[in-house]
Amino acid sequence: MKRVESVWPYLTPGIPDHLFERLSGISMSSREIRLLILSYLQLEEDSILWDIGAGTGTLPVEVGLLCPQARIVAIERDEEVAALTQLNCAKFGVKNVEIVTGSAPDCLSNIKQFPERVCIEGDRSYKEILQEVWKRMILGGRVVVTTSTLNGLYQISESLAGLQARHIEVVQSATRQLKLSSHHRISTEPDPVFLICGVKVT
Amino acid sequence: MKRVESVWPYLTPGIPDHLFERLSGISMSSREIRLLILSYLQLEEDSILWDIGAGTGTLPVEVGLLCPQARIVAIERDEEVAALTQLNCAKFGVKNVEIVTGSAPDCLSNIKQFPERVCIEGDRSYKEILQEVWKRMILGGRVVVTTSTLNGLYQISESLAGLQARHIEVVQSATRQLKLSSHHRISTEPDPVFLICGVKVT
Amino acid sequence: MKRVESVWPYLTPGIPDHLFERLSGISMSSREIRLLILSYLQLEEDSILWDIGAGTGTLPVEVGLLCPQARIVAIERDEEVAALTQLNCAKFGVKNVEIVTGSAPDCLSNIKQFPERVCIEGDRSYKEILQEVWKRMILGGRVVVTTSTLNGLYQISESLAGLQARHIEVVQSATRQLKLSSHHRISTEPDPVFLICGVKVT
Amino acid sequence: MKRVESVWPYLTPGIPDHLFERLSGISMSSREIRLLILSYLQLEEDSILWDIGAGTGTLPVEVGLLCPQARIVAIERDEEVAALTQLNCAKFGVKNVEIVTGSAPDCLSNIKQFPERVCIEGDRSYKEILQEVWKRMILGGRVVVTTSTLNGLYQISESLAGLQARHIEVVQSATRQLKLSSHHRISTEPDPVFLICGVKVT
Repeated sequence: MKRVESVWPYLTPGIPDHLFERLSGISMSSREIRLLILSYLQLEEDSILWDIGAGTGTLPVEVGLLCPQARIVAIERDEEVAALTQLNCAKFGVKNVEIVTGSAPDCLSNIKQFPERVCIEGDRSYKEILQEVWKRMILGGRVVVTTSTLNGLYQISESLAGLQARHIEVVQSATRQLKLSSHHRISTEPDPVFLICGVKVT
Repeated sequence: MKRVESVWPYLTPGIPDHLFERLSGISMSSREIRLLILSYLQLEEDSILWDIGAGTGTLPVEVGLLCPQARIVAIERDEEVAALTQLNCAKFGVKNVEIVTGSAPDCLSNIKQFPERVCIEGDRSYKEILQEVWKRMILGGRVVVTTSTLNGLYQISESLAGLQARHIEVVQSATRQLKLSSHHRISTEPDPVFLICGVKVT
Repeated sequence: MKRVESVWPYLTPGIPDHLFERLSGISMSSREIRLLILSYLQLEEDSILWDIGAGTGTLPVEVGLLCPQARIVAIERDEEVAALTQLNCAKFGVKNVEIVTGSAPDCLSNIKQFPERVCIEGDRSYKEILQEVWKRMILGGRVVVTTSTLNGLYQISESLAGLQARHIEVVQSATRQLKLSSHHRISTEPDPVFLICGVKVT
Repeated sequence: MKRVESVWPYLTPGIPDHLFERLSGISMSSREIRLLILSYLQLEEDSILWDIGAGTGTLPVEVGLLCPQARIVAIERDEEVAALTQLNCAKFGVKNVEIVTGSAPDCLSNIKQFPERVCIEGDRSYKEILQEVWKRMILGGRVVVTTSTLNGLYQISESLAGLQARHIEVVQSATRQLKLSSHHRISTEPDPVFLICGVKVT
């Protein structure tokens, strides 16, 4: 039995970027970064995941396909972008994503279910968001944060240290699509992306 | 329902390297490379996968967990290493892996089921193996080959071109674990790895 | 005594990119690539260097400053670009560059002095150019070729092997300027660049 | 006139690593890192350079050859290692290096000449050293610091910010020697290295 009607009839994650609907100016996590985020999130079958800064919605789509029994809360402050998240979930037939339009950390206190996993994407007020996340995340919960700047990397590291997070890891992605020939079209190299993860233990 | 008894109770791929049993001198595909291989294999629920050069068995384990209805044939020439593949499958509770001890391309003609996906890992006679794979793989089947050398990259590219493979992509992995401090233990940087994939269309 | 009137009053190579005059659409070797090219050229005080595909002229400028007694022949097919090469040499006060406007390999037979070092930059007919270079370069001469494509890398490697070049090395540059913060302007990441060098011994 | 008797008869920097005398356990800046350090130091003909943590002595050798009129102070706490620095200077015929055996920052106050350029290599007490350097370096002086850890990167960045350094740049080196074939010997990939530079303006 294959998911033949689906845009992505495969069980493996790592959907090619061009399959997602895009909005000009809205960044998205590339295929390789999504693979790393998924891996470091270590999702269980029925995990409750908050995706803060859902944007194009590539992560909710990948998680929704991989873990159809998970409960995914996609948080996005911009209404138009939230509609894009929704659109991509619909396109890929993902049904277990609840979209919250609101600005983190303020809107987080309104979300009823406490998270077991949290992903924070895009450049934001890491410190305040992480503090609020730490209040609500269950013990043993994991957080994965991405940033493309050194400043972001500093703030995230210091915040996680302040929160006594354990098992902190920092990964830098630099996977490259190599050009075969000069006539071959190539997508621009993404900025270097740092991924930082940590676990709540106290 | 969580897979609590399992060594890896998570739905997401990308098992940390240290969870696998190892044999000294036997290389293994690192976590980041496995994520890329899985993504480029684009596996379906019931795909038939040949893994040529199974080695430590990390790929059969990841595929077995992700696609429990897939049929995985792990091909490994060395008996002791084949036992290691088996051991890791058992450790992770993977049951849909058939192990073939034999040397590719010769042993491939004895495998009954034609593959829909093929992964070729490790440095080998790429040309002869790809020719044999092309005879047996179904139309629309995908092959993913990894190599750490430019010579390997040349041979694979030329072989795929000669076989009129389509949708050829070359990806170079360079994900890095960043050291937090000088006292922090860090695993050695893996050699740069090239991943080449192509699709059989004629 | 400092070279105070100069745009670049320093003895160390690696001139920041923004100090060069540019023409829209004309690529230039970035600072980091130039450092690698210089290093692998292993120039002597009075070396005769051919720079095939001089473009913006960054390499002639760097060599001219570093080795004021060297004889540099900058070969560029496009007249407007050759004027740019000239302009940058003048800007940096470099006087030991002769500019040849012509298309390689055809124009190479008109250059009187046989080269001791050759740099080939930009995507071109590597095989024909290398064959012509090999006819004219002195024994012990070194060639350094850059390319941004795998196809280029193949052609250069095969040509050098066919010419029985020795001490072949392949280097991939991936130096990155890291963004400090998201408000910080960052120059676009250059394409990955391969540098291949070899020595004529027969 | 060629420097024929020299181990390195070339005018271009970037001496291959294997030409230096080594001591087991003593790290050295690789060829590519040295090229970046040199470039970011922006040395003038008669610059006064302090090299704190001289180690194997590769930087004093490169600077000594490139700027024979510069005054180089190589500071190294370990006597045996200082002897290695000396040995390499002698091997390459470099005469403008003064070796100070002592521990920074304490020993810095005993050095008579104020520096115009400072390089700090190896993992050390960045904050204290940079404060002492800032007291003594001339206005307009440049400092280049290398580190292989994120912790080092943080400390250096914060210290430079506290000292109101300007023109701060962070560069990550990731140049790779690519393996041609699996039979080809390849030197181990170096740790990722961060290079941070800044200028004293107040």
